[in-house]
Amino acid sequence: MSVITESTPAGRLAGRLVARLGEGLPAHALSTDPEALAAHAHDAAPFSEHGRPAVVVHPETAEQVQHVLRTAYELEVPVVPQGARTGLAGAANAEDGCVVLSTTRMDRILEIDPANRLVRCEPGVVTRELDRAVAEYGLTYPPDPASWAVCTIGGNIATGAGGICCVKYGVTADYVLGLDVVLPDGRRMRTGRDTVKGVAGYDLTRLLVGSEGTLAVVVGATLALRPARPPALAMLAQFGTLPAAGEAVAAVTAAGHLPSALELLDRTTTRAVAGLGHPLLNGDRAATLIVESDAADPAADLAAMAALCRAAGAVELTVAADPDQSRRVIEARRMVTPGLQAMVARLPGEPTAFIEDVAVPRTRLAELVGLIEGIARHHDLTIATLGHAGDGNLHPTVLFDRTDPDATRRARVAYDDIMAAALALGGTSTGEHGIGTLKRDWLARELDPVALELQRGLKRLFDPKNLLNPGKVVIA
Amino acid sequence: MSVITESTPAGRLAGRLVARLGEGLPAHALSTDPEALAAHAHDAAPFSEHGRPAVVVHPETAEQVQHVLRTAYELEVPVVPQGARTGLAGAANAEDGCVVLSTTRMDRILEIDPANRLVRCEPGVVTRELDRAVAEYGLTYPPDPASWAVCTIGGNIATGAGGICCVKYGVTADYVLGLDVVLPDGRRMRTGRDTVKGVAGYDLTRLLVGSEGTLAVVVGATLALRPARPPALAMLAQFGTLPAAGEAVAAVTAAGHLPSALELLDRTTTRAVAGLGHPLLNGDRAATLIVESDAADPAADLAAMAALCRAAGAVELTVAADPDQSRRVIEARRMVTPGLQAMVARLPGEPTAFIEDVAVPRTRLAELVGLIEGIARHHDLTIATLGHAGDGNLHPTVLFDRTDPDATRRARVAYDDIMAAALALGGTSTGEHGIGTLKRDWLARELDPVALELQRGLKRLFDPKNLLNPGKVVIA
Repeated sequence: MSVITESTPAGRLAGRLVARLGEGLPAHALSTDPEALAAHAHDAAPFSEHGRPAVVVHPETAEQVQHVLRTAYELEVPVVPQGARTGLAGAANAEDGCVVLSTTRMDRILEIDPANRLVRCEPGVVTRELDRAVAEYGLTYPPDPASWAVCTIGGNIATGAGGICCVKYGVTADYVLGLDVVLPDGRRMRTGRDTVKGVAGYDLTRLLVGSEGTLAVVVGATLALRPARPPALAMLAQFGTLPAAGEAVAAVTAAGHLPSALELLDRTTTRAVAGLGHPLLNGDRAATLIVESDAADPAADLAAMAALCRAAGAVELTVAADPDQSRRVIEARRMVTPGLQAMVARLPGEPTAFIEDVAVPRTRLAELVGLIEGIARHHDLTIATLGHAGDGNLHPTVLFDRTDPDATRRARVAYDDIMAAALALGGTSTGEHGIGTLKRDWLARELDPVALELQRGLKRLFDPKNLLNPGKVVIA
Repeated sequence: MSVITESTPAGRLAGRLVARLGEGLPAHALSTDPEALAAHAHDAAPFSEHGRPAVVVHPETAEQVQHVLRTAYELEVPVVPQGARTGLAGAANAEDGCVVLSTTRMDRILEIDPANRLVRCEPGVVTRELDRAVAEYGLTYPPDPASWAVCTIGGNIATGAGGICCVKYGVTADYVLGLDVVLPDGRRMRTGRDTVKGVAGYDLTRLLVGSEGTLAVVVGATLALRPARPPALAMLAQFGTLPAAGEAVAAVTAAGHLPSALELLDRTTTRAVAGLGHPLLNGDRAATLIVESDAADPAADLAAMAALCRAAGAVELTVAADPDQSRRVIEARRMVTPGLQAMVARLPGEPTAFIEDVAVPRTRLAELVGLIEGIARHHDLTIATLGHAGDGNLHPTVLFDRTDPDATRRARVAYDDIMAAALALGGTSTGEHGIGTLKRDWLARELDPVALELQRGLKRLFDPKNLLNPGKVVIA
């Protein structure tokens, strides 16, 4: 990163940029404060390079977003859109001299339409706030990424975010009916519809969901809602071996159950949560499953799944009989992050948790977890694997000291080894976190070369000057 | 249509084309027989122009499809892909001198994977056959377009087909995990994945679904399956006024029910079905609802919905207590097509049924049906409206004698009036049948001009020579 002063060409461009941006933005919506620039330089991904923005803007209206994009287009300055910066792939990382466009101040819920089960909102609405607002109408917006309490709908749309309950209720993409976006040159466009069904033209809405802010900036969304979820009950099953847990997951699926959560904790993760003193967890077990049901008769549904777990070899089984016990079970899932943080804190130096996001066909899940255990041994690393077992999506987390160059090197190699293992098992390098800059090389390995070429073509079609979040997802 | 002989330039091109195609196709996969050419000249849409193909090919492998597309690309001859030609928008209509590429002989189910709940198949598999095949594994492929018994998966993917149970189970697009396609220049490309979740790159799969054969030819698909549907029960409710039926639909939705079918028959359709002697139907009623539930306790679910219908003013109510009674209720829905055929057969001349496919937000449904009744009166036409009330998708069907020029003119105007009414109510010109050639002008009215421009750009990106099903959906 080089020092930019007003006497350098970059400095003069930045000065002109800020002045021009200011012509269409209120003063408080624009910042060149070094602390703000540093805070907005990157998202939550480790290992992904980032630069220093020239300016951070916080537009409050779609028209202001248009002004920002038009100005940047004219001056040929890159624009990096940001939500809550909870992303884990570097898709919101700044580059030197760019405009960071934060949509967090566009946070109004514009309309809740209970009869048509839809909501219209701006991109900066926090996901949990949206769900709370629609809950007053007996409705729910199901997608529940881990950062639910702070992340924004705009960021969820950009990354195509998943979550825990999507094993039953689907991911963000399944709920986006229509979008209001601004294209890189500042033109505004509406896609999609207000109706449940519709096939008028190519599906631009779905093309934009998951495009990580590289094709357009979302300034509004129409989202589908569902009736509030019925009361749920949960159970916790522990296994002496990993294949036994894998067998239980397969048996649950094969029997046609649709649990509303089906989460797997490997040995390391189990130990981490038990280490925090969770009363239901035996820290010596090879694997733990946390299962939630919101079926019409959740107790009966859980009992049937418990029987399948027992048949697969579960050695401990806690089936909640009431909401209180359920909360305690679910607490184990919530304690994964603090448990891993406590584990990582015991590392020397600068402890780092590097979270992966691979997905495989459900039946290959146990096999993948086994391969990951092997990768951890091979590289002499601690890898804790937590997974959305019900949909084959795993988050192996590499724990290491980043002041130790060799551990850092091994962590990077292990990260790649995990993706290679997932692809070899017919999986994908990213189930719900996205490509960003972190996995760009892996996208090229995962995709058909013809498909990759078309992806680049799509980027050029939407963004011929390559100014909107350049270098993310694909190199145009 | 002009006569093409070998001495004309078009004739010489056709001769060269057939010869070149024959180099990579078995003789039985290629036909210039006038009867075959006529049979493959168009789909089931009325009022949509079509030409005469130069040749019809029936490739049996993806490699043969590649050969056909490569050859046509080199000779710059348009290619029109076809499935079962049950489409209702002219999307499979031939143009003069084109190659018709029928995928009906690529009809193998390649793999049923019950543990991962997916199936891999070729495009020519008949939709009902696919569902039958997976039923042996306790699974189901839910999308059930009306032409289910004869239409193909490839055609369903091309049109983004819907159906009756999609009110609960979603449409074709929701089940397509990945595609194997051939691009206009003959290159083959795989999109998507075998995993439930995945966000690696822009969603090419979803872009291709519903693209009506204008971007690529599907040669294989990976489709998601669901556990077999639980036993269902049905009920039939009749109303003295249309708004009462609309109120009942709104009440059912508002109460959070998720019926597996929620179909509306207007006065004319009710009369048509009663005219065939259905024992449960009073032919004098303004509207009929047919409701099916496959909830955990369908009897209780139906009872609750019946109470809502009664509160909304239902004057006749038949709630099936067993599968036999249910079959009789559902029979009323099945009798709509024969009922309308019997009604249209009583018209003089060349009776024609011109089926529409508009969708509106659920709450505007009764309003739209009322507007359609007004349009019928205004143009002195019989319009029978049948609708997937649960998702706001209506199929108003204009019945007229096409040998009567004035009736034909009025039918066309009424058809347009219905789309205008749907758009004015915040709806779409097509819920599940597609744009084809029939609604191309309406697409331009429905879409944002910027979105329309991008749609054209997408077509050019995939098909720079504009040879694959040219003139359908958008004019490139």
